Amino acid sequence: MRDLNAIGRIGIGDRGAVTRLVFSIKELRSRQVLIHLLRQAGLKIQIDAIGNIFGRYQGTEAKAPAVLAGSHLDTVVHGGKYDGPVGVIGALEAVRTISENQISVRSPLEVVCFVGEESSRFGFSTLGSSLVAGEVHPKDLTHSVDAQGTPLETMLQSLGITRKNLDTLKRDPKGLKAYLELHIEQGPILEAKKKRIGLVTSIAAPSRFKVIFKGRADHSGTTPMEMRKDALVAAAQFIEYVEKICRRHSAMAKGRVVGTVGAIRIEPGVINAVPGKTELAVDIRSTSARAKKQVARTVKGRARVIARQRGLGIEILTIREENPVPLDKRLLRLTQTLCDSKHINYEIMPSGAGHDAMQMAKITAAGMIFVPSKRGISHNPLEWTDPADIALGTQLLMETMIRVANEPV
Amino acid sequence: MRDLNAIGRIGIGDRGAVTRLVFSIKELRSRQVLIHLLRQAGLKIQIDAIGNIFGRYQGTEAKAPAVLAGSHLDTVVHGGKYDGPVGVIGALEAVRTISENQISVRSPLEVVCFVGEESSRFGFSTLGSSLVAGEVHPKDLTHSVDAQGTPLETMLQSLGITRKNLDTLKRDPKGLKAYLELHIEQGPILEAKKKRIGLVTSIAAPSRFKVIFKGRADHSGTTPMEMRKDALVAAAQFIEYVEKICRRHSAMAKGRVVGTVGAIRIEPGVINAVPGKTELAVDIRSTSARAKKQVARTVKGRARVIARQRGLGIEILTIREENPVPLDKRLLRLTQTLCDSKHINYEIMPSGAGHDAMQMAKITAAGMIFVPSKRGISHNPLEWTDPADIALGTQLLMETMIRVANEPV
Repeated sequence: MRDLNAIGRIGIGDRGAVTRLVFSIKELRSRQVLIHLLRQAGLKIQIDAIGNIFGRYQGTEAKAPAVLAGSHLDTVVHGGKYDGPVGVIGALEAVRTISENQISVRSPLEVVCFVGEESSRFGFSTLGSSLVAGEVHPKDLTHSVDAQGTPLETMLQSLGITRKNLDTLKRDPKGLKAYLELHIEQGPILEAKKKRIGLVTSIAAPSRFKVIFKGRADHSGTTPMEMRKDALVAAAQFIEYVEKICRRHSAMAKGRVVGTVGAIRIEPGVINAVPGKTELAVDIRSTSARAKKQVARTVKGRARVIARQRGLGIEILTIREENPVPLDKRLLRLTQTLCDSKHINYEIMPSGAGHDAMQMAKITAAGMIFVPSKRGISHNPLEWTDPADIALGTQLLMETMIRVANEPV
Repeated sequence: MRDLNAIGRIGIGDRGAVTRLVFSIKELRSRQVLIHLLRQAGLKIQIDAIGNIFGRYQGTEAKAPAVLAGSHLDTVVHGGKYDGPVGVIGALEAVRTISENQISVRSPLEVVCFVGEESSRFGFSTLGSSLVAGEVHPKDLTHSVDAQGTPLETMLQSLGITRKNLDTLKRDPKGLKAYLELHIEQGPILEAKKKRIGLVTSIAAPSRFKVIFKGRADHSGTTPMEMRKDALVAAAQFIEYVEKICRRHSAMAKGRVVGTVGAIRIEPGVINAVPGKTELAVDIRSTSARAKKQVARTVKGRARVIARQRGLGIEILTIREENPVPLDKRLLRLTQTLCDSKHINYEIMPSGAGHDAMQMAKITAAGMIFVPSKRGISHNPLEWTDPADIALGTQLLMETMIRVANEPV
């Protein structure tokens, strides 16, 4: 908790809101603090080109594939202090405890901090883990630009990463035995069911796209209502529709879908002009690839109808299209057995949020452990998890790491 | 046209869009160019604390009250080159022609450039002329802040203008005989009716206010639709309603009302968070004070209902509440007589847009002359007026100035 709070103070602002956008000074500082903590714990540190940090603890078999555990330290704008750091500091605490108690492990253990899990700055999520999994392709970079107009690609180039060498950050699956991630639930289910641990079966994936309505900027005093091409009213109709269709899917038994318009930009964006252009960022998620695809297709179709009815232009740009990711069944069973033997109240559940584990699952066995979020709140300064639950999750993480590290390859 | 184009090149960008926000480097440069032109024309220049420029041409009776003519040089974001400059350069051209042709006038003439007619930067319109008319009151400054967070009040303080000395910029009505303003129509009526000149009866006034919906920022992946407090969906419902109610009023015979949501800000404003807060800037206008008030009341009531239904907080802040302004009937008749004698095709009409004349009408006789806007487009790079129409409007302005200057007080 001391280390978690130390990280939590970096980027803290009004009402406890934490902002550590990827590649910001605050985010870099949090990584420096972690490096210091890893070094204190006697771990061997490796940092790749993007800045992913791996703190390695040597097992008895130096050449055995490693058991990785971690998460991320970057946050959304005005977020909380648990989303991400719980998994990084949890892994550090697990390895530290193993080291201090001289617990024998065969495979090496690695504490991992991935860069840029949150999409808040560039609209690109799980950046660091995607590179480690070899899952970033040149075309993925095209529409990723931050609010100041800096393209993600320019940022990567400054770190020596270009479209041509994206795959050099990929870790060899042969060197990996498993990836484990402890994370806050960020939803209301564990609290509602009075469970202290969530064991994750699969991760819902987002369809993310931009919808751009192109109307005509006009004088707001002299342009009669019937002669306008107001891009904001069209956007408003679309925003309402996304909520409506997702509420309908939310009520259905299977393939629950959530949809959010989280960002909006308008031009010219002044009180005395009819908006001529509106750009919306849309996020549709489900653990069912089919349901997600269907809703995304429906809302895009509706956007085109709204534009046609109002005589506006429209453009729809894909930001990212991902498939829900099933996690490793053997790891799930192992954690389940551990919970049963310790009489821990757990829930087997999918994850509505995306996580680095979703990328790591593509190159190794991946498992996730959730701890409850108070009132289900996350991406918000009110984000809170009981320290006793964080401790329990960390203990379960540690025991899982020891078991996996000692299993034959 | 040469001078108009010289001003039009200051702040020009992509696709001919002109941006000269009040107190920006570009706007200050346009004022410097005007000062240079006024000096070349041999006028005596006076500049007040806010930066309003008065270029005086002496008549035969030095102490007689002056006939003022002008407009403004600041623009909206991505505007055109005619809104404002036509009236300033038109007045300059009129006085220059009078001077060059040694036409005798009894009253002094003044070419006026008012600062900050557009509300684009601080949400505060006709700033310079309001100060000259003594119509800015301390409470008006409270909510005026630009996009960078600079309060208008701080800007004024840097010019030595405080809440306590706002009235020192007011011009004594005894020194004023009339204020005339040549301006582009910024609407589609003159073109539709094939008229070259518009003579303005009254100016519609805006009710401007902010509507702030306060919901709760949540994770967009883990928060079920039915547990959200999405401030953007609430805003979307409101935006649609403003259009709906104004379309209804637009169709009615009298008291035509236009309503626009021109600006929107959301927090946190990222693709992976449910919007927790939305701030909208609303502009409702009519030449009927009653109709405008009724619509403003209705939409505010609707905003409160939407917030209540969705369990959100709401705040409504008045930015500016103004009454429609009738212009001087005698000046209207005079311009009408001049048009008749020259067989000019004119239209007697109200102004949907606000203008500096609306403030000047409070301290002197005010009149306005409109020239047609192609396709009614304004506040847009496509803003265009035929040079022949600008010349005709300028000629009418000049003859009106001479007549008024030579009339007995």
